[in-house]
Amino acid sequence: MSTTILEKKEGRVSYHDSVEEMLKRIKEDGLSSVFSRWGEQEKIRCKYCLEGLSCQLCTQGPCRISEKAGAEKGVCGIGPDAMAMRNLLMRNIMGAATYGHHAYEAFRTLKATGEGKTSFKITDVDKLKSMCEKLGIKTDQDTNQLAIQLADLLDKEMKVNPDQESMMVEVFAPKKRKPLWKELNIYPCGVQHEVENSIASCLTNVDGDYVSLAKKALRLGLSTIYTAQIGLEMTQDILFGTPMPHEVNVDMGIMDPDYINIAFNGHQPWIAVATLQKAKESHYQEMAKKAGAKGLRIVGSIETGQELLQRFEVDDVFVGLMGNWLSIEPFLATGTVDALVMEENCSPPAIDQYAEKYQVALVSVSTIIGVPGTQHEMPYYPAKADEMAENCINIAIDNFKKRHNKILPMVPKQKQKAIAGFSTEAVLKAIGNDLNVLVDVITKGQIKGIVALANCSTLRNGPQDWNTVNLTNELIKRDILVVSAGCGNHGLEVAGMCNLDAIELAGEGLKSVCKALQIPPVLSFGTCTDTGRISMLVTALADHLDLDISDLPIAVTAPEWMEQKATIDGLFAVAYGAYTHLSPTPFITGAPKLVKLLTEDVEGLTGGKVALGDDPVQVAIDIETHINNKRKKLGM
Amino acid sequence: MSTTILEKKEGRVSYHDSVEEMLKRIKEDGLSSVFSRWGEQEKIRCKYCLEGLSCQLCTQGPCRISEKAGAEKGVCGIGPDAMAMRNLLMRNIMGAATYGHHAYEAFRTLKATGEGKTSFKITDVDKLKSMCEKLGIKTDQDTNQLAIQLADLLDKEMKVNPDQESMMVEVFAPKKRKPLWKELNIYPCGVQHEVENSIASCLTNVDGDYVSLAKKALRLGLSTIYTAQIGLEMTQDILFGTPMPHEVNVDMGIMDPDYINIAFNGHQPWIAVATLQKAKESHYQEMAKKAGAKGLRIVGSIETGQELLQRFEVDDVFVGLMGNWLSIEPFLATGTVDALVMEENCSPPAIDQYAEKYQVALVSVSTIIGVPGTQHEMPYYPAKADEMAENCINIAIDNFKKRHNKILPMVPKQKQKAIAGFSTEAVLKAIGNDLNVLVDVITKGQIKGIVALANCSTLRNGPQDWNTVNLTNELIKRDILVVSAGCGNHGLEVAGMCNLDAIELAGEGLKSVCKALQIPPVLSFGTCTDTGRISMLVTALADHLDLDISDLPIAVTAPEWMEQKATIDGLFAVAYGAYTHLSPTPFITGAPKLVKLLTEDVEGLTGGKVALGDDPVQVAIDIETHINNKRKKLGM
Repeated sequence: MSTTILEKKEGRVSYHDSVEEMLKRIKEDGLSSVFSRWGEQEKIRCKYCLEGLSCQLCTQGPCRISEKAGAEKGVCGIGPDAMAMRNLLMRNIMGAATYGHHAYEAFRTLKATGEGKTSFKITDVDKLKSMCEKLGIKTDQDTNQLAIQLADLLDKEMKVNPDQESMMVEVFAPKKRKPLWKELNIYPCGVQHEVENSIASCLTNVDGDYVSLAKKALRLGLSTIYTAQIGLEMTQDILFGTPMPHEVNVDMGIMDPDYINIAFNGHQPWIAVATLQKAKESHYQEMAKKAGAKGLRIVGSIETGQELLQRFEVDDVFVGLMGNWLSIEPFLATGTVDALVMEENCSPPAIDQYAEKYQVALVSVSTIIGVPGTQHEMPYYPAKADEMAENCINIAIDNFKKRHNKILPMVPKQKQKAIAGFSTEAVLKAIGNDLNVLVDVITKGQIKGIVALANCSTLRNGPQDWNTVNLTNELIKRDILVVSAGCGNHGLEVAGMCNLDAIELAGEGLKSVCKALQIPPVLSFGTCTDTGRISMLVTALADHLDLDISDLPIAVTAPEWMEQKATIDGLFAVAYGAYTHLSPTPFITGAPKLVKLLTEDVEGLTGGKVALGDDPVQVAIDIETHINNKRKKLGM
Repeated sequence: MSTTILEKKEGRVSYHDSVEEMLKRIKEDGLSSVFSRWGEQEKIRCKYCLEGLSCQLCTQGPCRISEKAGAEKGVCGIGPDAMAMRNLLMRNIMGAATYGHHAYEAFRTLKATGEGKTSFKITDVDKLKSMCEKLGIKTDQDTNQLAIQLADLLDKEMKVNPDQESMMVEVFAPKKRKPLWKELNIYPCGVQHEVENSIASCLTNVDGDYVSLAKKALRLGLSTIYTAQIGLEMTQDILFGTPMPHEVNVDMGIMDPDYINIAFNGHQPWIAVATLQKAKESHYQEMAKKAGAKGLRIVGSIETGQELLQRFEVDDVFVGLMGNWLSIEPFLATGTVDALVMEENCSPPAIDQYAEKYQVALVSVSTIIGVPGTQHEMPYYPAKADEMAENCINIAIDNFKKRHNKILPMVPKQKQKAIAGFSTEAVLKAIGNDLNVLVDVITKGQIKGIVALANCSTLRNGPQDWNTVNLTNELIKRDILVVSAGCGNHGLEVAGMCNLDAIELAGEGLKSVCKALQIPPVLSFGTCTDTGRISMLVTALADHLDLDISDLPIAVTAPEWMEQKATIDGLFAVAYGAYTHLSPTPFITGAPKLVKLLTEDVEGLTGGKVALGDDPVQVAIDIETHINNKRKKLGM
């Protein structure tokens, strides 16, 4: 396998053979794809936009900053640094609010479940109790009561304002960070408050100071992780189980055209789980067989798929994960998908042509979705989850009758093993609940450090997943353990980096640890939403050692970030105190003072900073240098 | 005065002589201004941005849509109509969240006042009781208790989610509209919920359907007015008094350099009122005199100024309103301002050069403000309002010592009379609390119809306030009563359209009504935040006649809209059922289906629609035609 890594990328648009194969069909069938549209856009990109020097907010604009043209400020008077930072903060806000939306749906689902209104149950009672204990809810109550009270508390946490204090931040933030955040005035309120405050700041003629805007972004990042992400992931664990490592199947070879295949796509697993529960009942399998299929199957697509993957065994009903967001169009082109059920990003807007060509029913199960060609729209109500799941199955059965034996299936042979389901609890279990075991292997240098990789997949810096896979390979070679989340994680799973065979790719030190613990050198930690989950592990380590985050031999990388949620995860990491590598470079290069602030000066404040670079080897070297510096300071 | 209206605009950048005069000084002093930067930007505008065909959300971009270049969709697959509508919805969201922020601060201030923590008092107890009664709060309680309970209820209303029902919408929406909004699925939740839901929809790869996005904008508009704006305006009335008509002074001639002048700029009047209360105490006047000044004066700047103007008499302490946002830089150049205290837009980002040149202390009293050069920053806490006001006075006194006799003052002679302070209650009072009086003059055709003018001021469609003043003149000539709000309203006040002399500009019918009631033909209804207040009058009229909004001979115009709050007011108006004129044309012209939806098809849904046009005479003709059509249908 090592031969495929860092192989020349000429002529390829994806790291994955399955995607390359499907793109041939897509081209022959005359459809456009993200990959083909990329080429068209490359010819007409705007360099002002790329540099962050373009603003379209008000009718005094659109404005551009061009020293050469004598336009050093926008009409309102905003300068290049504030313009670029305001653009970035607006992207951050979009990410933060979307996590807020996900969290809202999670807490709503937990509450409805506690009230007995859903078909879900409290799966991880221990975690429910532990969360309640941490947050001051008396645990000598009925489980359902605990669920209701926890849901109410978590929902309220997102609304915490400056007259109140956030319990989630108090409980989950690293001990040594809290006074620092207060001093820097970035100690956060609830995400819904911070979103509103940040938006009002971004309005034309309100905040025109890049430093002030950047600090708002840092605060928003902290707010997002502590008052939305961690609560929502813990809630999903309570409802559907805390992830534990197990072997799963990934890539498009998991598809069988003779089954009725329902794929769940997005980030919010409510209807996916409800449908999976039903699909395991023989009644629904019988229905599928009556329709002429071999059975009914659930397929994981992108993050929703990962949410399933990390909690459920792969079997004849749940068949695994197809890949990440850039694989969606190729996946639909296999002609094997009966329903694509969507509830969040990435649900790309031009898949109507695929739905038509390959006979896929597009289904939305959230009010936020608006994909053209979606014929079945169901707003999400937790109490209706069961009914919605039933609808999804019926829609898929109907589609099967129109698809099977009419659309020629084309299934790439690639099918890969991965070990999914790492979590803080899983890691602690692997080391016998003794963090000293981890400390010990780090101190000895068997593991030099830990890198959290959380991101998307993009074509900007090379073929799909190329940077993600190659950087990861370079890191593990250097005895750096990678903990991965998000679409990048799916890319690594599909590329075979998350299984035990990948141990051979690691450096000698890491290899020995992985062998001893029987874990891969890349720990699949879930989705981009699990950024908070990863931070919990790092916080546990810091608090255990009585160190600050910025003292630890760790780093964060987003080697192929694409959308707005990635930007707020990145800003969180900087505020959290982490060296944070971002590729592609955000649209800020026209703003020299801002670039200096984010890549240099901020280190003097939070101890974290943004590191740039698109070459995976150089990035790995830089990260290793950073980790070695931290090791040195700790006397390791 | 009529001779100045529609006079040639060649060589001018503002309707107002005072601004033109100050711009000469600004030019001589080598400073840039909105007016000069406009010229620079005109040379390098992006036509893709102007047409709405540009997207910078993700790293797959920046994308542009160009059929000619073969780029018919963005990389993700989004088409021109959805791209432009998503851009517009993001602007709408910014406006909605900013109103939400203002409302949050209002309810927080009301609550703290009820708790006895502020220096404010409950001024309009009747309005407090009437609001409580409408919203189901028992009124046989202590006034302060009512204030606390109302504040809590209003704050909660902004958080109403799909599992709940909004009381504010139920109580304040027009009777005939509510079933229609439910049918169209645009019946709103609370603004904070709708903002979050809309943002999550705008994320890359979530909602790529222009119709779906447009419906979200309509729902967000309704949500903004009913769950933020109306509550916040009523709260400000409860705290500071319901506006009643009275004569005031406007334009820059109100300034006297020998006084210590504190100008309050933005939209949120908390610290302005607190400072005005203090400035009326002889203690502070003595302090000013000790510093060598003739006294201490409060000056209204833009919307915060209007909030004062509509509630307080002009006297030797509160001297009136300087103008609208485009006048801020010229205003600072008078060399008479000791402190510019800012809490919301418009607080332009390049006024640091003015602060330095003309010795002005820049002060922020809200966390959202980030104007470069601001040396005094105070986050707003209601309980600290008094202390903050004290600080503002001290800052201004210090500044006076540095400014007076050191900076050459230059005060334009223009000073205009206006009648400010119209409100639903004021109008009802003027007609003896009998809506039939209004119905009667409309039925007879003395008043053909009513136009609500609510907007900003922009240079895109001509000199400052040119379109606003000329369109208004054309409307009143046609016997159409104009009810005005926002920066446009300040432009009309400064232009002399809001006083009794302006009656002579009106058509014969309107003239006779204005003379009989002793009101101007343009009723100054306050700030852009008073859009909700205006709708309350129209709703009262519709409900009184048992008609729907779309049946009434009314229209809305924003002849010089500039920022994002204006866009959400506009979308509200369309959902409300109003013919809604917008100039400049929003950045949607590259999206033909979207243009058709907003300017034609939506009328079949809500009865409202967007009307475009930059020529004030033609716009007036179009509005008159619309009003005449509605009159005809009503048999008038």
